[in-house]
Amino acid sequence: MTKSLLRSLLDGQPPGTPESLIVRCLSQRGAISAAQIARLTGLARSTVSTALTGLKKSGIVVELAAADETAKGVGRPPATLTLNPEAGTCVGVHLSLDEIRVAVADVSHSFISEKTIPLGLDYPPDRAAKLTKAAIAQCYEENSLSASGLLGVGVSVSGPVSPEGFVQRASIVPTWAGVNIRHVFGPVLEQPIFAANESNCAAIAEMMWGAAVGYEDFVLFKIDLGVGGAIVQHGRVVTGIAGGAGEFGHMSIDPSGDLCRCGNRGCLELYASFNRPLEQIARVTGRRVTMDDVIRMAEQGDVGALRMIEDTAEMAGRGLGMIGSVLNPPLIIIGGRMALAGDILLTPLIAAYERHTLIKARDVAPDRRTRIIIGKHTENDVLLGAVGLVLSHYGRLQ
Amino acid sequence: MTKSLLRSLLDGQPPGTPESLIVRCLSQRGAISAAQIARLTGLARSTVSTALTGLKKSGIVVELAAADETAKGVGRPPATLTLNPEAGTCVGVHLSLDEIRVAVADVSHSFISEKTIPLGLDYPPDRAAKLTKAAIAQCYEENSLSASGLLGVGVSVSGPVSPEGFVQRASIVPTWAGVNIRHVFGPVLEQPIFAANESNCAAIAEMMWGAAVGYEDFVLFKIDLGVGGAIVQHGRVVTGIAGGAGEFGHMSIDPSGDLCRCGNRGCLELYASFNRPLEQIARVTGRRVTMDDVIRMAEQGDVGALRMIEDTAEMAGRGLGMIGSVLNPPLIIIGGRMALAGDILLTPLIAAYERHTLIKARDVAPDRRTRIIIGKHTENDVLLGAVGLVLSHYGRLQ
Repeated sequence: MTKSLLRSLLDGQPPGTPESLIVRCLSQRGAISAAQIARLTGLARSTVSTALTGLKKSGIVVELAAADETAKGVGRPPATLTLNPEAGTCVGVHLSLDEIRVAVADVSHSFISEKTIPLGLDYPPDRAAKLTKAAIAQCYEENSLSASGLLGVGVSVSGPVSPEGFVQRASIVPTWAGVNIRHVFGPVLEQPIFAANESNCAAIAEMMWGAAVGYEDFVLFKIDLGVGGAIVQHGRVVTGIAGGAGEFGHMSIDPSGDLCRCGNRGCLELYASFNRPLEQIARVTGRRVTMDDVIRMAEQGDVGALRMIEDTAEMAGRGLGMIGSVLNPPLIIIGGRMALAGDILLTPLIAAYERHTLIKARDVAPDRRTRIIIGKHTENDVLLGAVGLVLSHYGRLQ
Repeated sequence: MTKSLLRSLLDGQPPGTPESLIVRCLSQRGAISAAQIARLTGLARSTVSTALTGLKKSGIVVELAAADETAKGVGRPPATLTLNPEAGTCVGVHLSLDEIRVAVADVSHSFISEKTIPLGLDYPPDRAAKLTKAAIAQCYEENSLSASGLLGVGVSVSGPVSPEGFVQRASIVPTWAGVNIRHVFGPVLEQPIFAANESNCAAIAEMMWGAAVGYEDFVLFKIDLGVGGAIVQHGRVVTGIAGGAGEFGHMSIDPSGDLCRCGNRGCLELYASFNRPLEQIARVTGRRVTMDDVIRMAEQGDVGALRMIEDTAEMAGRGLGMIGSVLNPPLIIIGGRMALAGDILLTPLIAAYERHTLIKARDVAPDRRTRIIIGKHTENDVLLGAVGLVLSHYGRLQ
């Protein structure tokens, strides 16, 4: 009962009611005050207050105990509200290169369980769906959760996904190109399916729980074995007409450059991902190294490792400089495995951004400058974001 | 009385009321039906209906006679609603290279009057404000309009403008860099001042009256003596933290290229504007030509003129290909003087876009393809958009 009411409110039914607006706001933001709800929804304070009374009565919204007891001297602190954790659960699934990860969270944004399913390269969609179903069932059983409370499954895909759920060419898992995520998971899981590109998921994770909390507009730029990204504008992820927005790695910066896996030439990914630097270091040192190895080597002062990170930062900063001239965002979050290099990467990247972008930091007041920082959930952003798809009701496949 | 009520509703006061949402919606959209209002605001049909009764009673909203009498056979056509033309007027001002243009429109989106003030290069701000004031007064007098009905003045600037109204470096009128539009026009005109970059104004014109009606997301790309642009996302112009969004001309595509007027190297504007082609043609033909001359020459089959337009289209398509990989927009509108070349420009530009962008038309269903078209108001988009700033309540300087 509570679940079906919660589901219809999350679907915005009936449309435009204060109850539906408040439930979607809480689902997206986690725990916030009534005043914040009024500001974010544009509803009058009195309307929010009336609707909250009804939502609390029907068990959909709960009031959290004030965390800060020391505040009692300065009047009662405003109550923090959240969706009732018992009102429902969400599942996040990340389809990565050679494994599937599954996470379960409740609607108050708390994580309950997580599992990894090891697979080989190029695993087939039907097998993925069956193994995912089994892993979800196991999570619910181990944590004594009611399967009937499941509100939806968010699927993060390593490639662009169309609004209908089709995985586009340029996916890093080639066998999945042309596959429709809803057709694969919908009949097996029998749940509402949400899907998005993994970088869009990472952006949602940073927006809901991480470095972008409080920002309505930002850019996420991932530096890993590929280069990916996402754009959030007016509080919503920019999808693009065919799911191709935020594909920064495939800006063709040199039309006579090398062929890219996407079929174009001279894409930014060829110069700003950490693929070629790993090959260079292997060639010089005679041993295969990982990105984590190179970061460790750089931290210990290895000149070659430092140079490879700095050169990558220069190219990423050049690409971001162009993105800066296009979007002039308030915030750029650097994600991907190479973001774990911290300032070794960030310092030269910021210098390159400043050199190549139109609006320079020195031209504008401090509060008008673009901040460039490392993400907060770099190691787990994609899985977090897959759960966030359901909570934020983003990327629902119909 | 009506004016002050209209002004406060346009300001969204009190916040979130159906009346305020409806007035802002009508102000932005012109003439639409109650059903469209419900869809655009997210309000319930019954709420819209109740609020409209009150707004009609207070003379803020009027019902238009159905334009299509032939429709009577299929039931009464839905009434079209608009803000009462008598409830207020708006002024648009375009500060261009060597002249100022002024236009007056009513809140139902009808144009009443237009004037041009010829000036020399690098005209000073205080003189601009005084002459603008005189031109506005003349427009109102000649058309027997009440000056008390003026709701605000929208100013279009040939350069990026910060949200506070500061003209940024890279303005095409150098003396205006660092000047605050509100400080210049506010005290002289004694009206609410709105300001935006001229390309953002052009985008607003196309969104309100032109090629982008019905689109929530699109990109405008201007090819003229410079290259400019604008981004509309979720129905709103993307400003950027310092007003620098949409500066496509200053994407640095060749970091070792020629110095640009913005201080960077190898900006797209150097290759995709029509500045250098005019120099090339003048050198070869021995006479100075304008963009209109070149378009005429190309239409008559002049090989050199055709080649210059095609080369410009190639570079513009390359730049747009990158913007496509960033935003994957449903619609790209080509504006600027060179857009008047029509298919001579558009055909090679679309081919170049397809070659360089990630998501190719052939990869996706027809309704998932990026449409690239010529704007509807190319010759007057900036002045229209300056009026549109006030009507859409965009770029209000506080």
